Amino acid sequence: MTYPQVGKGFFIALEGGEGTGKTTQAGLLVEALRGAGQDVVHTREPGGTEGAEAIRKLLLDPPAGGWGIRAEALLFAAARADHVDKLIGPALAAGKWVVCDRFIDSSRAYQGHAGSLGDELIRQLHLAGSTGLRPDVTLLFDVSDVNVAERLMSRDRGRSDAIGGRDPAFHARVREGFRNLADGDDSVIIIDGNGAPELVHRSVMAALKPFLEERD
Amino acid sequence: MTYPQVGKGFFIALEGGEGTGKTTQAGLLVEALRGAGQDVVHTREPGGTEGAEAIRKLLLDPPAGGWGIRAEALLFAAARADHVDKLIGPALAAGKWVVCDRFIDSSRAYQGHAGSLGDELIRQLHLAGSTGLRPDVTLLFDVSDVNVAERLMSRDRGRSDAIGGRDPAFHARVREGFRNLADGDDSVIIIDGNGAPELVHRSVMAALKPFLEERD
Repeated sequence: MTYPQVGKGFFIALEGGEGTGKTTQAGLLVEALRGAGQDVVHTREPGGTEGAEAIRKLLLDPPAGGWGIRAEALLFAAARADHVDKLIGPALAAGKWVVCDRFIDSSRAYQGHAGSLGDELIRQLHLAGSTGLRPDVTLLFDVSDVNVAERLMSRDRGRSDAIGGRDPAFHARVREGFRNLADGDDSVIIIDGNGAPELVHRSVMAALKPFLEERD
Repeated sequence: MTYPQVGKGFFIALEGGEGTGKTTQAGLLVEALRGAGQDVVHTREPGGTEGAEAIRKLLLDPPAGGWGIRAEALLFAAARADHVDKLIGPALAAGKWVVCDRFIDSSRAYQGHAGSLGDELIRQLHLAGSTGLRPDVTLLFDVSDVNVAERLMSRDRGRSDAIGGRDPAFHARVREGFRNLADGDDSVIIIDGNGAPELVHRSVMAALKPFLEERD
């Protein structure tokens, strides 16, 4: 079973590396959809449910020595399983919109590509944990390396965590991983995230227009 | 890579349902091996490392609503990945004995069989997390349902947790799952666990005698 087939909801994931503006854009998108009268669940990964938020804490503030990449991938899959089981799946089955800041493609880019576990293993874990659920649309924010570096520099240093704080080479592989995922997958829409938030938001709404009209 | 092939250590897992005497027997076995001059790592699952113990807490004292069976299986696999990566693998590579209270066969019996996820999925998660590491010997403690019931009755009620506290039908399926695992696997040795601890311990040492002699 895959949730989108049984429910009438619509599932949008926002993806990209650190500093690509996903979180800002998720907020603007949810506001716009609610303004248009839609019933929207706004959530994020890792997290979104009580259980998944507890796993998030373990992931971002790991025990001494950190997690190995395999344990890390399993923990992300466990958090996602809880999130899909208790929040995303039921919301979609009830016909709601779900806007999620990061989903399975983050695992593919971070642990699968940058962490070298490979795409097949990440897909297997997603099948095992969440019956392979795919978003209806994935918005992938692409921002030039220069702009990402500037945005991260201006962020509060205290926000860096066990994953965000990895070295630049790791994050370069993450960006490469995200770009690979868009190839040949029509449900992944690349959004130019280099402009001001309001301009990027307009691109997002333009990309979603056909789906909004279809559901009216 | 599988650790037992690269190291010279010897890995013994003790398995069985609740109240089968595994934990008592693990203690007696470790004592006997150390008495014989062996270098022994005594550990347990879920747990054994700082990270895996943190996951153990989430498993045995879950968030509101509990974990779904898929999230639960992924969390066990994550804890095991950390345990193998940081404790069991290095100990075996250093030529030590490892005595572990529960390992992969508990996941197969609890989540795979009793939880209906199936053996294939549990094996996939173990391959993903811990490169499929198998103990050299698994001691499976088989105790009659009547004796198990008596032992559990005499236990402090406060010890019951989210998994141990499941209904009798679940635990009957766990026992069935364990018995199935022994079929056709020479590394799994069934130990009659019905007698007094010292008697059962003698059976354990008799079963391990060939391996002890081989390593002398």
